[in-house]
Amino acid sequence: MSYVKKLKCLLCGTEYDANEVKYNCPKCGDEGVLEIIYDYLKIKKDFNRDTLKKNREFSMWRYLPLLPVDDPAKIGPSKVGWTPLYEAKRIREDLDMLNLWIKDDGRNPTASLKDRPSAIAVIKARELGEKIVTCASTGNAASSLAGAAASVGLKSYIFVPQTAPSAKIAQLLVFGSTVFAVRGTYDEAFDLSIEATREFGWYNRNTAFNPYMVEGKKTVALEIIEQMDFEVPDYLFVPVGDGCIISGVAKAYKDMFSLGLIDHLPKLVAVQAEGCKPIVEAVNGDGEVKFVEPNTIADSIAVGIPRNRLMAVRDIIKSRGFGIAVRDKEILEAIKYLGTVQGIFAEPAGSTAFAGMVKALKEKKISKKDKIVVLVTGNGLKDVESAKKAGGEALVIDPNLEAVKETMN
Amino acid sequence: MSYVKKLKCLLCGTEYDANEVKYNCPKCGDEGVLEIIYDYLKIKKDFNRDTLKKNREFSMWRYLPLLPVDDPAKIGPSKVGWTPLYEAKRIREDLDMLNLWIKDDGRNPTASLKDRPSAIAVIKARELGEKIVTCASTGNAASSLAGAAASVGLKSYIFVPQTAPSAKIAQLLVFGSTVFAVRGTYDEAFDLSIEATREFGWYNRNTAFNPYMVEGKKTVALEIIEQMDFEVPDYLFVPVGDGCIISGVAKAYKDMFSLGLIDHLPKLVAVQAEGCKPIVEAVNGDGEVKFVEPNTIADSIAVGIPRNRLMAVRDIIKSRGFGIAVRDKEILEAIKYLGTVQGIFAEPAGSTAFAGMVKALKEKKISKKDKIVVLVTGNGLKDVESAKKAGGEALVIDPNLEAVKETMN
Repeated sequence: MSYVKKLKCLLCGTEYDANEVKYNCPKCGDEGVLEIIYDYLKIKKDFNRDTLKKNREFSMWRYLPLLPVDDPAKIGPSKVGWTPLYEAKRIREDLDMLNLWIKDDGRNPTASLKDRPSAIAVIKARELGEKIVTCASTGNAASSLAGAAASVGLKSYIFVPQTAPSAKIAQLLVFGSTVFAVRGTYDEAFDLSIEATREFGWYNRNTAFNPYMVEGKKTVALEIIEQMDFEVPDYLFVPVGDGCIISGVAKAYKDMFSLGLIDHLPKLVAVQAEGCKPIVEAVNGDGEVKFVEPNTIADSIAVGIPRNRLMAVRDIIKSRGFGIAVRDKEILEAIKYLGTVQGIFAEPAGSTAFAGMVKALKEKKISKKDKIVVLVTGNGLKDVESAKKAGGEALVIDPNLEAVKETMN
Repeated sequence: MSYVKKLKCLLCGTEYDANEVKYNCPKCGDEGVLEIIYDYLKIKKDFNRDTLKKNREFSMWRYLPLLPVDDPAKIGPSKVGWTPLYEAKRIREDLDMLNLWIKDDGRNPTASLKDRPSAIAVIKARELGEKIVTCASTGNAASSLAGAAASVGLKSYIFVPQTAPSAKIAQLLVFGSTVFAVRGTYDEAFDLSIEATREFGWYNRNTAFNPYMVEGKKTVALEIIEQMDFEVPDYLFVPVGDGCIISGVAKAYKDMFSLGLIDHLPKLVAVQAEGCKPIVEAVNGDGEVKFVEPNTIADSIAVGIPRNRLMAVRDIIKSRGFGIAVRDKEILEAIKYLGTVQGIFAEPAGSTAFAGMVKALKEKKISKKDKIVVLVTGNGLKDVESAKKAGGEALVIDPNLEAVKETMN
C-alpha cells in the first residue's frame, strides 16, 4: 500500500479516503480538484538521501514512496523518467549566465513529460481492475496514455482536437488507440471525454479531473532536486497550459521540504504564449482566470480553459513567482536556438519556457547570476511542421561538387 | 590516452598507428576499412564486472576503456546510450516465446542509435582540432551528427538524399546544419560528401570511411551484454543498411570475449527489406555483395551499395548467423504490432529487425525457446508518413456524445 493518507478538496477542504472517490470532489464538482496528502512521517523511514544514493532504479519509480501506487506489480514496463538535466554550458557562455540548467523531458518513452502522469493513470486503472482508459488531450497526454496502455494491454479511447499535429495522431494510432479527432477545440474534446467516461464507464486520465496526475508530473522536479544535489534554484520556468505540470513541480518541492530534504522552495514562473495566456494574466493580476480563445502554434499549451487553474494560480503566487508571455515568433526562435547552441530539439511548448526565460532576462525580472532551471517538456519530432518553420530550408543541389561550391559563394 | 593499439586494414592486414591515418587504408582505398585493435591486457586492469557494478555513469561512456577516446574532456554534454532493454512480456505471451528481449535505441538524444557513433565522431574531430564535420546519411546519422556537433559548437555540413523524411531534415536544420538535399540516391550523396571532404578539408563521419564508427555503434551491444547480466543470446536480429551496426554488435561481443567476460558469441541475423537486400543475398549465398537499386519504405536501410559490406558479411558468416528479408508490408505491420502490443514506437528500419524475427520464427529458422534479442534502431516519430500508413485512421467526429456512440456501432 502507498503512503497516501487522504485526498483533500482544493475548494472546500473536505478529506476523502482513497477508495472513497475516483475523480473530483463530489460536493464541489468540476472545480473541486483533489490533492493527495501523504504520511510524511512514515515516508521518512524509507526515503532519504542515503536510500536515494543506493537506489539503482534510474526512472521515476525511484520515488515510489512519494507516489500513489498501492501495487508496484502494476507498474508498466516502459522506462519513464530520469531524463537528463543539462548544465547547458554553451548557452551559459552565450547568454553570460552563471547558473542555468535545462531539463530535457522529451527523452521519455513517447517523447514528452506526459509519460509520467500517464504511467500513474495506467497503474490506478489496473489497481481498480479497469480495462479501458480514456483522455482528452492536445496530443502529448494522449500519446503517452496510449503507449502506456498498450504496454500493459489496456484499451484506450482518445479524444483530440482535429487540429492536433499529425505526428501525435500517428503515434496514437500505432499504439492501437481508438482516436476521436473532434471537430472543435481541446476544450470541447475535454468536455466530450468526460461525458463519454460517464456514459461508458471508462477510466479517465484527464488533467485536474483525475486527482493523481499532479503526482506523476511532480517526478520531473523530484529528479531535478536530486540531480542538483538538493540545491534549490531561484527560478524554475515552466510552460503552462492546464497548469498541471507547474503544480506538479510545486508539489515536488513541497514534498521534499516536508521530508526535510530541502530548506526552501523555488519561485515558479509560468510561461504561456501571447495568444493564450489566461494563467499569466491571472498571476500577474488579481488571481482570477479569464477564459480565452487559444491562438498559438504551441499546441500543447493552447488551452483556453485551464482545468487546473485554481491550484496552479495558488502555487505560483505562493512561490512568489510570476507569469510571462512570449510571441509565437519567440517560441520558434527558441526552438532554433536550443537546437543550434545546445543540440536540444524541443517542440513549441517545450521551447516556450526557454523563450520566457530569455524574455525575463531582457526585462530584468531575473538576473544573470540567478540559479535558473528551464523545463523542456516535449521533443521537437512531435511537431515537424513547426520545426520546419523554425529551422529554415535545405539547399537542394545536383549530385556534383560544382553544385556544392556554388552554394558556398 | 585510449587503449587503442593499432588500426588494421580489413583487406591487406596492414597495421597503422592511430595518428598515422585518418580514414581508410591508404594502400587499399575505399574498401580498405580499418578496424580498431585494443590492448585488452591493459583494459582488463580497469574494466571488469566489479568496476561496471560500481560505475554510476549510465550512458555509453561507462564503456570508456573500450572506446577510442584519447581525451575524455572532449566528450559532449548529451546523454547518449543506456537505453532500455525490454523483456517484452506481452510479445512473449502473444508469440509464445520464452526468451525475447527488445533493445529500444530510439531513446537516444536525436532518437536513433546513430547518436552513439556520432558522439565518437565529434570527439575525434575535436581531438584533431577540426571545426567542421560532415557526413552523408539517409537521415539518422546526419541528425545525430548535427545534434552532437551543435552541442559542442562545431559546424556541420550534411548531405542527404532529397527523399529523406522531412522530420529528419527538419531536425538537421534546427540543429543549425547546412543541409545539402541531393537530387539523387544515398549512394550519390555518400560519394559527393567524400569529394567535398577532400576539397574542403572537413572532418568526415561516413560509415566505413571513418574507422571509429563501429566503435560507437558497438556500445549498444555492450549495454545489451550488461543488461542481460553477461548471458549471451542465441540470436541477435539487426536491421542492415551499410552493415556497420551489425559489425558494431559483433565487435562488442568480441571485445567482451577478449576480456573473458563472456564465453561465446551470439549468431547474428541481418534483416533487410525485400526491395534492398544485398547483404542478405551475400550471406545466404556465396558471400559476394551485388549492388542494387534500393526500393523500400525503410529509408534508413535503403542502401544499394553497402559501404561496410566486407566486414559485415565476414562478421555474420563467422557468427554462423544468416540473412532474412521482409516485405515493406511486413515492416509496417511490425510497426503497428510493436506499438499496439508493447508500446514501442519504431521507425520502419527500426521495426525491420522485429519483422525479420517473426518471419524467421514462422520459417522455423529459430525456435520459440531460443534466447533472442531484437534491435530497434530508431523512433517512429522520425518517419510519420510511414507511421500513418502503419497506424490507420482517426475517427473524425463532431463534438457530441451521439457522434461517439455512432462510431461504436
